[in-house]
Amino acid sequence: MMKHRIVLVKPLHDSNVGSVCRVMKNFGFTELVIVQPECKLGFDALLYAKHARDVLQKARVVSSFKEAIKGYGVVVGTTGVLDKYSRQMFKNCVSITELSDKIGSRKACIVFGSEGTGLTDEELLECDLVAHIPTSDVYPVMNLSHAVAVTLYSIAAKEKFLYAPADRKKVFYLEELFSSVVDKSKKVKDKKKIKQAFSSILKRSAISDDEIQALFSLFSEIK
Amino acid sequence: MMKHRIVLVKPLHDSNVGSVCRVMKNFGFTELVIVQPECKLGFDALLYAKHARDVLQKARVVSSFKEAIKGYGVVVGTTGVLDKYSRQMFKNCVSITELSDKIGSRKACIVFGSEGTGLTDEELLECDLVAHIPTSDVYPVMNLSHAVAVTLYSIAAKEKFLYAPADRKKVFYLEELFSSVVDKSKKVKDKKKIKQAFSSILKRSAISDDEIQALFSLFSEIK
Repeated sequence: MMKHRIVLVKPLHDSNVGSVCRVMKNFGFTELVIVQPECKLGFDALLYAKHARDVLQKARVVSSFKEAIKGYGVVVGTTGVLDKYSRQMFKNCVSITELSDKIGSRKACIVFGSEGTGLTDEELLECDLVAHIPTSDVYPVMNLSHAVAVTLYSIAAKEKFLYAPADRKKVFYLEELFSSVVDKSKKVKDKKKIKQAFSSILKRSAISDDEIQALFSLFSEIK
Repeated sequence: MMKHRIVLVKPLHDSNVGSVCRVMKNFGFTELVIVQPECKLGFDALLYAKHARDVLQKARVVSSFKEAIKGYGVVVGTTGVLDKYSRQMFKNCVSITELSDKIGSRKACIVFGSEGTGLTDEELLECDLVAHIPTSDVYPVMNLSHAVAVTLYSIAAKEKFLYAPADRKKVFYLEELFSSVVDKSKKVKDKKKIKQAFSSILKRSAISDDEIQALFSLFSEIK
């Protein structure tokens, strides 16, 4: 059984929500949270869920993105299209082929945006990792339940974890400490860029508890 | 563009056929052959194909399984459920996680059975490889277009770097600089561990030129 939570933000069609439930159960996922659904979770949801009605019936509806991702070890946003602009903006972007390694043994919250628009930049900026499905440039936009299918498959297919990445809370503390070191430096320009660079490599490397502790001791002294 | 042919045998719902066209185009596949469709390829097929109507319109309908697989380098049958009986019967069974390696550079014909029943044993025996999607035992039966999505993704997925990682030489210079900062710190214990932690996260994150430069400016000042 997979322990990760799946979050759908403002889904438009209940047939897609049902399809998502089915493919979740196909790959052993059970926890679904829906943020402000823009459709009734009615007949089509049940029809498309098929033998995964239990996943649908246990799904929780919440009123905000923040509420949906609260308390998770790592929050993964997904994006269909990755243009120059978003590559620039999201340095913590990974292909779903490597997503499983990046999540490691942590409990993940994996978030999918609305069929029409995907996740907003603000929502993606709240995420620890931004996962991208490597699709064709000719037609990159996937159906929502297909995107979920491929993402969950790529996570479920790999079950061996090489190491345990640290919780986002600990990463946050290290970022804060580093940030205060940067702020105390008088000569360096562009402090924001330095902080961002450090944040991005922490997240892409899926830093472990031991590594956090090691860097913590150093930066504490420097500070 | 992927050169492989996708074959659907006796599909029941044209919405599924349309969905298959869409996900084919998402992953760069263009050739679809349909054996004895049990549905009209009408409105729902077009609706679900979305911007992959060209794939649908170019699809060929043939009257037999043999005709659909003729002249291919390797024929891959797919099966949803893999019980004791079929494991015994199909020794050429592979997980789709390894399918791409097994196909290699050959031109493949990848065959999916009907929503209700899948491919028959006779059809699977005609195939060179029988590919299986590793699903949950609790609910192994996937929607047809989801099965196609996951299979095509697993074939199309190649290591794609989303950004350009820095040369190892530059990483080395940053490591050296960091190392000298650690050496100057008087209070920290276990300096080797701190250096190793930093090295590891640099490598796992595949740090970029920009990020190296940002951290360089900071550590130069600290030093």
